[in-house]
Amino acid sequence: MSVRAAVAGASGYAGGEILRLLLQHPRAEIGALTGNSNAGQRLGALQPQLVPLADRVLEPTTAGVLAGHDVVFLALPHGQSAAVAEQLGDGVLIVDCGADFRLADAADWERYYGSPHAGTWPYGLPELPGARDALRGATRIAVPGCYPTAVTLALFPAYAAGLVEPEAVIVAASGTSGAGRALKPHLLGSEVMGSMSPYGVGGVHRHTPEMIQNLSAVTGERVTVSFTPTLAPMPRGILATCSAKARPGVTAAGLREAYAKTLAGEPFVRLLPEGQWPITAAVAGSNAALLQVALDEDAGRVIAISAIDNLTKGTAGGAVQSMNIALGLPEELGLSTIGVAP
Amino acid sequence: MSVRAAVAGASGYAGGEILRLLLQHPRAEIGALTGNSNAGQRLGALQPQLVPLADRVLEPTTAGVLAGHDVVFLALPHGQSAAVAEQLGDGVLIVDCGADFRLADAADWERYYGSPHAGTWPYGLPELPGARDALRGATRIAVPGCYPTAVTLALFPAYAAGLVEPEAVIVAASGTSGAGRALKPHLLGSEVMGSMSPYGVGGVHRHTPEMIQNLSAVTGERVTVSFTPTLAPMPRGILATCSAKARPGVTAAGLREAYAKTLAGEPFVRLLPEGQWPITAAVAGSNAALLQVALDEDAGRVIAISAIDNLTKGTAGGAVQSMNIALGLPEELGLSTIGVAP
Amino acid sequence: MSVRAAVAGASGYAGGEILRLLLQHPRAEIGALTGNSNAGQRLGALQPQLVPLADRVLEPTTAGVLAGHDVVFLALPHGQSAAVAEQLGDGVLIVDCGADFRLADAADWERYYGSPHAGTWPYGLPELPGARDALRGATRIAVPGCYPTAVTLALFPAYAAGLVEPEAVIVAASGTSGAGRALKPHLLGSEVMGSMSPYGVGGVHRHTPEMIQNLSAVTGERVTVSFTPTLAPMPRGILATCSAKARPGVTAAGLREAYAKTLAGEPFVRLLPEGQWPITAAVAGSNAALLQVALDEDAGRVIAISAIDNLTKGTAGGAVQSMNIALGLPEELGLSTIGVAP
Amino acid sequence: MSVRAAVAGASGYAGGEILRLLLQHPRAEIGALTGNSNAGQRLGALQPQLVPLADRVLEPTTAGVLAGHDVVFLALPHGQSAAVAEQLGDGVLIVDCGADFRLADAADWERYYGSPHAGTWPYGLPELPGARDALRGATRIAVPGCYPTAVTLALFPAYAAGLVEPEAVIVAASGTSGAGRALKPHLLGSEVMGSMSPYGVGGVHRHTPEMIQNLSAVTGERVTVSFTPTLAPMPRGILATCSAKARPGVTAAGLREAYAKTLAGEPFVRLLPEGQWPITAAVAGSNAALLQVALDEDAGRVIAISAIDNLTKGTAGGAVQSMNIALGLPEELGLSTIGVAP
Repeated sequence: MSVRAAVAGASGYAGGEILRLLLQHPRAEIGALTGNSNAGQRLGALQPQLVPLADRVLEPTTAGVLAGHDVVFLALPHGQSAAVAEQLGDGVLIVDCGADFRLADAADWERYYGSPHAGTWPYGLPELPGARDALRGATRIAVPGCYPTAVTLALFPAYAAGLVEPEAVIVAASGTSGAGRALKPHLLGSEVMGSMSPYGVGGVHRHTPEMIQNLSAVTGERVTVSFTPTLAPMPRGILATCSAKARPGVTAAGLREAYAKTLAGEPFVRLLPEGQWPITAAVAGSNAALLQVALDEDAGRVIAISAIDNLTKGTAGGAVQSMNIALGLPEELGLSTIGVAP
Repeated sequence: MSVRAAVAGASGYAGGEILRLLLQHPRAEIGALTGNSNAGQRLGALQPQLVPLADRVLEPTTAGVLAGHDVVFLALPHGQSAAVAEQLGDGVLIVDCGADFRLADAADWERYYGSPHAGTWPYGLPELPGARDALRGATRIAVPGCYPTAVTLALFPAYAAGLVEPEAVIVAASGTSGAGRALKPHLLGSEVMGSMSPYGVGGVHRHTPEMIQNLSAVTGERVTVSFTPTLAPMPRGILATCSAKARPGVTAAGLREAYAKTLAGEPFVRLLPEGQWPITAAVAGSNAALLQVALDEDAGRVIAISAIDNLTKGTAGGAVQSMNIALGLPEELGLSTIGVAP
Repeated sequence: MSVRAAVAGASGYAGGEILRLLLQHPRAEIGALTGNSNAGQRLGALQPQLVPLADRVLEPTTAGVLAGHDVVFLALPHGQSAAVAEQLGDGVLIVDCGADFRLADAADWERYYGSPHAGTWPYGLPELPGARDALRGATRIAVPGCYPTAVTLALFPAYAAGLVEPEAVIVAASGTSGAGRALKPHLLGSEVMGSMSPYGVGGVHRHTPEMIQNLSAVTGERVTVSFTPTLAPMPRGILATCSAKARPGVTAAGLREAYAKTLAGEPFVRLLPEGQWPITAAVAGSNAALLQVALDEDAGRVIAISAIDNLTKGTAGGAVQSMNIALGLPEELGLSTIGVAP
Repeated sequence: MSVRAAVAGASGYAGGEILRLLLQHPRAEIGALTGNSNAGQRLGALQPQLVPLADRVLEPTTAGVLAGHDVVFLALPHGQSAAVAEQLGDGVLIVDCGADFRLADAADWERYYGSPHAGTWPYGLPELPGARDALRGATRIAVPGCYPTAVTLALFPAYAAGLVEPEAVIVAASGTSGAGRALKPHLLGSEVMGSMSPYGVGGVHRHTPEMIQNLSAVTGERVTVSFTPTLAPMPRGILATCSAKARPGVTAAGLREAYAKTLAGEPFVRLLPEGQWPITAAVAGSNAALLQVALDEDAGRVIAISAIDNLTKGTAGGAVQSMNIALGLPEELGLSTIGVAP
């Protein structure tokens, strides 16, 4: 039995990646593809890498077009998901790649997004404690942000084991596709090639409260997060360098053991062998998160680094993984840990 | 029934790509992996993108290690394939990604490679007239060079239809993985980023006689080829810009029709809609070759442009495609036309 | 005595490069800087690399603002230069980096630009025979297009010496800054990184008639040009691969000798030693054009390759070089052949 | 009166950049250029961007060759400078771009470099309190490491003003030229393009004690440093993201004022206007360090970010700046704050 899937926002980078994965998913059947300003255009002109879908034409994003599917992926600008979900009703699985339903705290939402809180949906990071239970049978899924995925996976084992203080410092580098396909001067190729550039510095990036929410939930106390995102001259990938002060008595061996134990059996998260560090090239197009952890005894800090593909594990892959769980399919179906490198 | 495959040269870029494709091939079972200087190392340290094989250890490249497989892929330096093939005997399919058995003309071989000619094996470019017949049931396959794959696919429809003069001018840009993993100063990241650089200019590149061989076979008369390869600041991809003088009476419509007709039904070659040109990003990790053709009436030339991934359609994908044909499997098995973009 | 210079279009890539060079020019004094949509903004926000001018504010592009300078550089969209020039009058040197006054043939202009021909100004490629005489004392200069600069320098010595047939085939790769700072989807970093893409294929690129004009003037007969531009994943640089059929009797030695002789004494054009090929990294930020030439005896063609920085020698450097000549200053003043590499 | 300068290690990236700057220095005269394995080669084959020196030939690195100059720049592997300096005697200014004489603490040296401590020379970071006095008239200069330059400039104003706790957390991204021209697999273009990769994680990078030394000297108490370097897919540039816990009572305005006051009058360090963040593209080829600082009140941390060109301000530019001071020349002579962008 196949799963009929629609993608709203099929002309963007997230939408294109969802389609790439669905094309390789043995149970998915691709239904309606919608866009806004691009409605009426051939997908081949917008997503030339999706050759099997080249002749499909984008439809407008309306409830009528999206109706009649088993699952609807939303890759829309913030603020549009609630209305679409309401129109589609409860009988369909809605997987929202936007931020609208990620935060549990309405005040956090309003502070960072400046609009009324739409609500909270089951959070699509299956590796978090309890997450799979919440996703099983769900009809609504909030796909995590790409940075929160990378950062949470890197740090939650340390917090779950009580090895670090609740003050995390994070610097992450992202490929430019993380900024989407919007036409902004600083995203021009001439500007980004050869340049590392920070943005959203000083606690103002919208992914900050999501990281705080995830890590605080794991540790049971409020974790503060100093988060600095940077734009790197590459199309895909996030490298998240995360650290926190080590609690007294933490040893390198104990740290490693905690990570190994917490991550045991995870299909998409891999703690690398000692001495090998994650690199983004290794996860290009893959749903894997590569991790490594170290104890800096001089500085008294635990350093955890993760590499993911922002579009795959960070968005579309995480979305499909959560969809699989929600629908009772094998979690790994249609996903792989094989990157396209070099 | 599964096909047990060994890969000799698994630490290089071609070897890694063969493994990436075999991991996704529903009938392949991955057997021995061999290296030379890297024997004894974990594959995870050399090909970190191949997570499912991370704990496999490279063995030395010997006939003993390679024996007992259904198919052996050779991704070795030139000159080593003949000896390996002789030791393995006739009962195994050998797919050689090296140049040793590509050229039919011994004089051409000796001139360009400076060593005695080893022989000629069935040529693994299934799209060429007659090629599939020669590959079906074959136990030896010579995988084409990456540039000849891109150039031949771009130009052979024009030659097959008699639309152009037998003097082709080709300028191709390749990603750096085409130069392999050898440690050479001009391949350092610091040198290649931000730089376009030509090499092998003036008819001396070793892929030139292979292009001449392919195009001459199609047209029945000797085609001359002026070929200039350039190194582009990207890891993967070939963009081949090919042109030849149009024969009298050629029209844009006739040209397009000839391409459409010749390429009809090809699973991996796609003539793009008018006005859309091939780009290498669209074929990253894909076995597709994207094509477009134009008639420049002022200059009196036909311009044909192709984009392939040098490691996929240009090497490992072409190898798996030919293997499928040789073994009687569906030609598209385990391969796709879906690229990883952006 | 200093030369007071204004720059119209100071927020774009060409304008920024003109300012970079003027800042290093011992005789230049930087006067008004103008923009259109950016008027009122600090230059530091738009051209952060020009630290000494960070606090300058862009003014609107009006004749009043541009009046009262010794030289006015125009880096404006096509079609605007004539009006500005008329308002400024004859007492000022106007150096136009746009296309409006490059072509002598009104029919060519109208065919390629679709608007009435504005006229023809002295052509700012000093290396062409007779060009320096026309530039000396000029009050109007049409700066060549970046591709025509690269291509003309590569081929004109061969045409001047009568060594090749009047049918040139050119494939050039350009960094993305050549497309300017316009917000177009295909110029986003996510799109251009990792991708080679052709455009303007089949004789339709607007720089084609300019190349024909230059080469035909040198050789005295009509030269046809098949020109294919491609976009390369780098911010700057043009690599132009040019070829033409060798005339009977041409030898490699004779070819090299003709180039050496024609280019002797040129301050900014360098024929590389045999065996070394031009690369764009070597000319980043430099006004040098690096050249190499080869004879492919099998294909019967001369291959000439040039590398320039599209923004420097290809635009702003060529503009300053011509300004120097027009004003009677030393031609090399404020310019160098030193690139920023790696 | 000109300064005659020799460069030992002229074939590497640091050596090339020193030459690029000396070529533009109005008082420098370029004397002997030496290499080791490259002795006897033309500089044009190794540093094609230095067109005016293309025909110079590298000599072996011996005291005889280096004798008779006013200043000798050493761009040699660690451990070789002491012997060269001893042979050259005291009458010559030696500017060492290597690490040998940077650290004051012999135990630190031995722990991080594994060899006996050679001594301590005046430290070439003029912006540090007291540094200019030590450099004036010096005949020996230890040029800082590239990371310590970026990090110290970003943080020392906060430490000098007592605004932050003595525990710094630093994540820096460097262009690949920072790793030098050595032939290592992970530095191949195919590996670095599209990839962010960490290295030297957990307090083991050799630049760590140098940062601790600089910041501790400013603040008067021992500062701990958690330093994580990452390799970014670009040839040049360092973006250093530095943070430390804010001391009680620190305000955003007070923080900014402290930076403005401390950096007032510095010719090469620029605190950007509020809201603008440093990017590496803006300092390519420039001796500028761009800075911005923010207070994250939620996380209670000060974030300071700097961008430099690792080869210019981070190595060769810093070396020339210190040379100018040592020789009594204007500090800015031959240096600029103008970057080559885009």
